[in-house]
Amino acid sequence: MTVTYTTRRSLSAKAPRCLHIGNINPQVKEAKYAVRGELAVKAEEYRVRLAQGDKSLPFDSVIFANIGNPQQLDQKPITFFRQVLSLLENPELLQKPDALRTTFGYQQDVVDRAKTLLADVQSVGAYSHSQGAPIIRQSVANFIEERDGYAANPQDLFLCAGASSGVNTLLNVICDGPDAGVLVPIPQYPLYTATLALLNAQCVPYHLEEQRAWGTDVNAIRTSLSQARSAGTDVRAIVVINPGNPTGASLSPADIKSVIDLAAEEKLVVLADEVYQTNVFEGEFTSFKKRLRQLQDEFPGKYDDVELASLHSVSKGMVGECGQRGGYFELVGFDPEVAAQIYKLVSIGLCPPVIGQCLLELMVNPPKEGEPSYELYQKEYNGIRQGLHKRALALYDAFRQMEGVECQEPQGAMYLFPTITLPPKAVEAAKAENRAADEFYCLRLLDATGVCVVPGSGFGQKENTLHFRTTFLAPGTDWVERIVKFHSEFMAKYN
Amino acid sequence: MTVTYTTRRSLSAKAPRCLHIGNINPQVKEAKYAVRGELAVKAEEYRVRLAQGDKSLPFDSVIFANIGNPQQLDQKPITFFRQVLSLLENPELLQKPDALRTTFGYQQDVVDRAKTLLADVQSVGAYSHSQGAPIIRQSVANFIEERDGYAANPQDLFLCAGASSGVNTLLNVICDGPDAGVLVPIPQYPLYTATLALLNAQCVPYHLEEQRAWGTDVNAIRTSLSQARSAGTDVRAIVVINPGNPTGASLSPADIKSVIDLAAEEKLVVLADEVYQTNVFEGEFTSFKKRLRQLQDEFPGKYDDVELASLHSVSKGMVGECGQRGGYFELVGFDPEVAAQIYKLVSIGLCPPVIGQCLLELMVNPPKEGEPSYELYQKEYNGIRQGLHKRALALYDAFRQMEGVECQEPQGAMYLFPTITLPPKAVEAAKAENRAADEFYCLRLLDATGVCVVPGSGFGQKENTLHFRTTFLAPGTDWVERIVKFHSEFMAKYN
Repeated sequence: MTVTYTTRRSLSAKAPRCLHIGNINPQVKEAKYAVRGELAVKAEEYRVRLAQGDKSLPFDSVIFANIGNPQQLDQKPITFFRQVLSLLENPELLQKPDALRTTFGYQQDVVDRAKTLLADVQSVGAYSHSQGAPIIRQSVANFIEERDGYAANPQDLFLCAGASSGVNTLLNVICDGPDAGVLVPIPQYPLYTATLALLNAQCVPYHLEEQRAWGTDVNAIRTSLSQARSAGTDVRAIVVINPGNPTGASLSPADIKSVIDLAAEEKLVVLADEVYQTNVFEGEFTSFKKRLRQLQDEFPGKYDDVELASLHSVSKGMVGECGQRGGYFELVGFDPEVAAQIYKLVSIGLCPPVIGQCLLELMVNPPKEGEPSYELYQKEYNGIRQGLHKRALALYDAFRQMEGVECQEPQGAMYLFPTITLPPKAVEAAKAENRAADEFYCLRLLDATGVCVVPGSGFGQKENTLHFRTTFLAPGTDWVERIVKFHSEFMAKYN
Repeated sequence: MTVTYTTRRSLSAKAPRCLHIGNINPQVKEAKYAVRGELAVKAEEYRVRLAQGDKSLPFDSVIFANIGNPQQLDQKPITFFRQVLSLLENPELLQKPDALRTTFGYQQDVVDRAKTLLADVQSVGAYSHSQGAPIIRQSVANFIEERDGYAANPQDLFLCAGASSGVNTLLNVICDGPDAGVLVPIPQYPLYTATLALLNAQCVPYHLEEQRAWGTDVNAIRTSLSQARSAGTDVRAIVVINPGNPTGASLSPADIKSVIDLAAEEKLVVLADEVYQTNVFEGEFTSFKKRLRQLQDEFPGKYDDVELASLHSVSKGMVGECGQRGGYFELVGFDPEVAAQIYKLVSIGLCPPVIGQCLLELMVNPPKEGEPSYELYQKEYNGIRQGLHKRALALYDAFRQMEGVECQEPQGAMYLFPTITLPPKAVEAAKAENRAADEFYCLRLLDATGVCVVPGSGFGQKENTLHFRTTFLAPGTDWVERIVKFHSEFMAKYN
């Protein structure tokens, strides 16, 4: 963590303050979050320097490939969504529907939807129900039912300020002290390890199978589980990120069944992080909820006690509205008393942002065929989807040509997570700087090209392997060429 | 906590689930938050029954006086704010500024502001810097400088999703384990006790002086502090809510100095919850930051090491946009290493809602004299201010006429917190229902009138005293009359 930080007074290191690095919450110190760590801070400094006209850098733009932030990289928001949101922010516009239509192209379904939402929430400036506005939870339930073919109950849904906030809530309830453990895939999105560190609970890592397109190896999970339990950890839950972050993997129904089987046998709560559910290039996304209901139908009794919490968000997919902070989680099979405690916990924070809740409603209930906004919506949605796939493939092709780089074929999410094999001299040079080799590589990449990626160590990786995660959100191919050129020079230098 | 909760399967009490009420995080169970507790849930049930046409209730509307939620109670948002926000949500509208002006009355300063904000945040759908967008932090710094006459540094500012989220962040860093303690006023807004319970830290209560308009009694604080320290608690911080919640008190510069003196002598971090800073009816608000800087100027050296975090929000004041979840805290005198840890902690949650950040910018940088939107802004702002004061006085007058009710004159915030003296028979009837007497009273009030208030026990009160907190946000006087009538019947019944 490097943050430039100045205060007007009190800069003396000896200042006898109450709080210092030695006495604050040690769990906060323990938590790591590389996605916004040193590299991201340095990239932001470069961006500011370029914006101020600094010509001394060897690149003319910074590419933030470290974080899934589509609209920072010029992805356009979907028109229908933003038209409705503008009316929710200023309902006075609804006074003149004709002018909205003729001058600004707002269709009737835009106006109607804004009215429907306002009738329920009254104002996006008012607190809603702490679980989220009832009408919006109903829409989410309808969406889940349509997606899975199984009913969902609005009372089991908790809207939240992005999935991150939902994960925080769930782990807060699940972890009861330093012996509580949660199985977390490695590599993983570091929100999980960071939150477990904050809660002073145990992260129980299980390795994904890189050679099987980063699939889930249930035997590896069993081994981790029994080792942790032998060591006295009360393992209570398993996190599955599907499609995977940072891996981009998409799990098969069979893989999902293996995890559910394990959860049923070993009494583990399943935390299914499904925020990339629409970012699937090959085949069809299967939700944990759907697979669980299928199994409950197929084998009556056997899966009745499985507890599942699944998360979704407006941040990813073709929506990409991460700055709006909207999302939800659904509880399946939870004890009602536990659910009541979750309600109390979220009520302390009052409610998720109401405009983000409304955006969630639009995401799960978009214009339907025959409705006036449908055509444009479809065109925009498919355009974004195709663009993402195209860029994923272009990046993948580039990686395949690079010496010492191996990459699994992109299946979904917004990321590629290639393995890099670096020459021994590069590893030594990294050691001399007291850095992990992948961190060293990523720093040099940033310094030389302005492209910011995240070292594999930020997500976890098998010993003696090196990776980095990059999004494939940035438009154009120039930045991919920058990586290719840098890599070949780097390899030449250290070989 | 009563929450109606059903699941499709697994309702058996014996179900061998992983999670049950006996093994979840005990700190979550410990936390209490009465503002959205049993009474609020029951009020919501009444609201739904009325909306569904239920004629069996003895009232025709529910008045949510339990929570400071102005726009739920028909407070209109300020036009300038919402016009700008509508453009941020749909920047396509900016393509036709003439139509915006002629048809919808958007002035040039509305359009200009939207463009300025968009130039910095790119899109409200993109993640911002985890501390908040730079341009917005600069505006907040300018606002603080203008308010206090002392400079503020954007790097010391952390934007957050409402002040609640900021309090959560700060207490998470300050509390390092079960021995850490924080001085909290009693009565208090229950966010503080709830968050300390979640962190398994000690709440060290100090009583406010009801007879001195709920002022701060520094001797009472010293007594609490030394008792707690003798008992082994490492007291690290003091919370001050000014203007007060639930008390409505407004602290004098002398009272503020006493707290800062204590903090300097006893090395306590001051957490100044100043979200009601514009809700002051008498005299002028003085911020803790201003008072601290004055003292630092007046007594060089003496106050240099005081650590202060002050919080503000878009939720209260004449803005009342609590559903938008915007706010900030400013760090003063904090160790840079501690501030860096705070940055890391907030970065795990990525960023506060960007549209809420933009609304904060509008709040701290409203139209100025001579600008096209100024006149309407002033009119709306003053109208809300006068309405709140008028309703506060009407409610205060009603309370003064009620038998067994005493109330301090309203000074600020959005609440009155009267003392009620109930007849012994009422106290016995409450005991027979296994309830606190104030809770019993508030439940009967809700059942008879539809008016939802919060019992004093939800905020803390001196032993053998009873209170309730009510907002004075609801329009009209009918609901005040309902309270008066209920109270007189209640007293007659139990006298």
